[in-house]
Amino acid sequence: MKEIYLENHANTRVDERVFEEMLPYFREYYGNAQSMHSLGFKSKDAVEKARYQVAHLIGSKENEIYFTSCASEANNFAVKGVAEAYRQKGKHIIVSEIEHFSVLYAARRLSQSGFEVTMLPVDRYGLVSPEDVKNAIREDTILVSVQHANPEIGTIQPIAEIAAICRVRAIPFHTDAVCTAGTIPVNVNDMGADLLTLSGSQFYGPKGAAALYIKKGVRIVPQIDGGIQENGRRSGTENVPAIVGFGKACEIAEGEMEENYRHMVGLRNRLIDELPGKIPYVTINGHPEKRLPNNVNISVEFVEGEGMFLLLDQKGIYVSSGSACASKALKMSHVLTAIKVDPAIGQGSILVTFSKYNGHADIDYLLAEFPPIVAKLRDMSPLYSYFQKTGQRRAAGPGTDYEHEHEQNQEDE
Amino acid sequence: MKEIYLENHANTRVDERVFEEMLPYFREYYGNAQSMHSLGFKSKDAVEKARYQVAHLIGSKENEIYFTSCASEANNFAVKGVAEAYRQKGKHIIVSEIEHFSVLYAARRLSQSGFEVTMLPVDRYGLVSPEDVKNAIREDTILVSVQHANPEIGTIQPIAEIAAICRVRAIPFHTDAVCTAGTIPVNVNDMGADLLTLSGSQFYGPKGAAALYIKKGVRIVPQIDGGIQENGRRSGTENVPAIVGFGKACEIAEGEMEENYRHMVGLRNRLIDELPGKIPYVTINGHPEKRLPNNVNISVEFVEGEGMFLLLDQKGIYVSSGSACASKALKMSHVLTAIKVDPAIGQGSILVTFSKYNGHADIDYLLAEFPPIVAKLRDMSPLYSYFQKTGQRRAAGPGTDYEHEHEQNQEDE
Repeated sequence: MKEIYLENHANTRVDERVFEEMLPYFREYYGNAQSMHSLGFKSKDAVEKARYQVAHLIGSKENEIYFTSCASEANNFAVKGVAEAYRQKGKHIIVSEIEHFSVLYAARRLSQSGFEVTMLPVDRYGLVSPEDVKNAIREDTILVSVQHANPEIGTIQPIAEIAAICRVRAIPFHTDAVCTAGTIPVNVNDMGADLLTLSGSQFYGPKGAAALYIKKGVRIVPQIDGGIQENGRRSGTENVPAIVGFGKACEIAEGEMEENYRHMVGLRNRLIDELPGKIPYVTINGHPEKRLPNNVNISVEFVEGEGMFLLLDQKGIYVSSGSACASKALKMSHVLTAIKVDPAIGQGSILVTFSKYNGHADIDYLLAEFPPIVAKLRDMSPLYSYFQKTGQRRAAGPGTDYEHEHEQNQEDE
Repeated sequence: MKEIYLENHANTRVDERVFEEMLPYFREYYGNAQSMHSLGFKSKDAVEKARYQVAHLIGSKENEIYFTSCASEANNFAVKGVAEAYRQKGKHIIVSEIEHFSVLYAARRLSQSGFEVTMLPVDRYGLVSPEDVKNAIREDTILVSVQHANPEIGTIQPIAEIAAICRVRAIPFHTDAVCTAGTIPVNVNDMGADLLTLSGSQFYGPKGAAALYIKKGVRIVPQIDGGIQENGRRSGTENVPAIVGFGKACEIAEGEMEENYRHMVGLRNRLIDELPGKIPYVTINGHPEKRLPNNVNISVEFVEGEGMFLLLDQKGIYVSSGSACASKALKMSHVLTAIKVDPAIGQGSILVTFSKYNGHADIDYLLAEFPPIVAKLRDMSPLYSYFQKTGQRRAAGPGTDYEHEHEQNQEDE
């Protein structure tokens, strides 16, 4: 059976060149990077080369890159580590309400130990307003964390503007760039970030290696103590093969970014253009222009997400229900809720994310297989049959003005 | 050049069978284990198979195994997570003074936020006394953490006795079994552990996967928040290939443990028996019987550790200076200090640790190359020439001649 992987925000397939680069570090150069002998130095050199490659991708210095095991660890490290380091100065932190769970839950954890968290709202495209950031900042604010782009709806935030506001007040600013680094240009200086999270598994690197950029001078309390590795800020034996793969992925991404970008934008635009002609009553969520090149979040009216997943899966088409991490909870995601998608529509959402490995044949297949799946599910939908009989949508929840709201939204797009 | 890897406590070479098992999960089954489609399920199934393999090795239930990225993370998770979960009950924790740095520094971090830490002394063999544990326990004690065996001197602790003392008082007991799991029998029920750390990279699994066993009913606060993976207790995309390799390593270790044990004990005993005949004035540190099968910690009088490392390295013999993590700090390790090795002797220590891949040819080579290296270094040693002239060792310690002599010695080098 044909298999089409369209869940590249969950993670990507490892690039052949990355894979080849990693291989020797399992059985040949298997030394501990902290060992003082020749075999250890080979591992150490490999880790430092990767550090250079990561730093180069985002325009930082090598000694500002701290390897972690995954992006969630890096986000937890940034949020909790900065909060703990600056807690004498204040206990207020600001995050957007559409951050990744690893930022949101880290903030929530802090709120259990005396920190206060302001959650910034977003507009219906998922944009954070720099004005809202400015207004939320208090005397005791010690951290602002706003993601570069949202993994679920693809909206890209005005990071430089937000960072500039924080810089003026000398408040450390963190951005989760997991969806953008390696895919679109990310430069810590242009963005003005004090801390930035990136992950190789999002751009053809292996699972098991991510990094937190920490600008020189920013204080942070280690979250994994032990005192040796990563300049004392992140202990634990370095996962040398994964770090090597991550570095290689950065190098490749830097060299091929434009080409991959153009390729994926072509796929994305074609899907956005052609899908509504084949499936009526669909909405594309997120910002019309300020969006990732490889993200299409589709809400399909009158159907449930679960049915679409199962039937697409049977055709070998692998998509996700928004953030990969939310895919087990079949309710509407926190992101679609934040941009005020009507629950009746949001529950019928799927997220398609492309990689450089997808091609137009994949779009052909999706455009051929997806519409009959939706038609089949709608045939079984009482909401749809009501709509067909009456031309009216049933109200989704108590007291909502969903119909009107939704129409407006459709017209605007 | 011949290369002999004798630093297997830092980490081991990946077993071919482990490597083969991991390979498909980079490029073929690259799905996110949380994804709901077929490719995700393949990853999920692989992670759950590994969880079974890990659980089986240590006699736990599968749902008591929590994957982490490394042993340091697991130790931090155990110490900080339990401390935070039980802090309403009390703020006193007990650790031995020869724990791994990831336990010691985690405890030290807690001491900065109101916890009190009792460090248990050890005897000259490195043994913790169960009586000392009993005496150290207070009304407000909420955690005891004592390692199963010490990575540096190989001493195996009376864990079942210590655990029984904690069990009576209903105090969670954690043991760091990084050196033992996969090498000697480790069974959480026989040991009575409430939490136990193990790491695949110590027994032919890859870097990047370790686990914390958490007995059902023990409370713990997650250290990497995000709410999804590992039953909500450890978030972050699962490092599927590394976890698969870890599981396979557990399965292999279980099947071949006796054979590997006998093999390594043979190497160890031969080295311990034959070395003193070839190098005078050497001491083997640690317990004479209660010790790991693959650990020989050797103190060589009248020489500095650094010189031995360098010259052994030139011969392709890779050893360590005690714990891998301490190898950058050329002072005497905290473990040798705790067992009261004379600093003058302890500074000339190396740690030899065997794997199943070592053979008697390696011992032949080491026994041939090591004695002339020591002889050469002793020829340059003022301490040794003083000893040869006078038959007297210069006393070590504050206010003694040794300090002065030692500085001279440094200058001489």
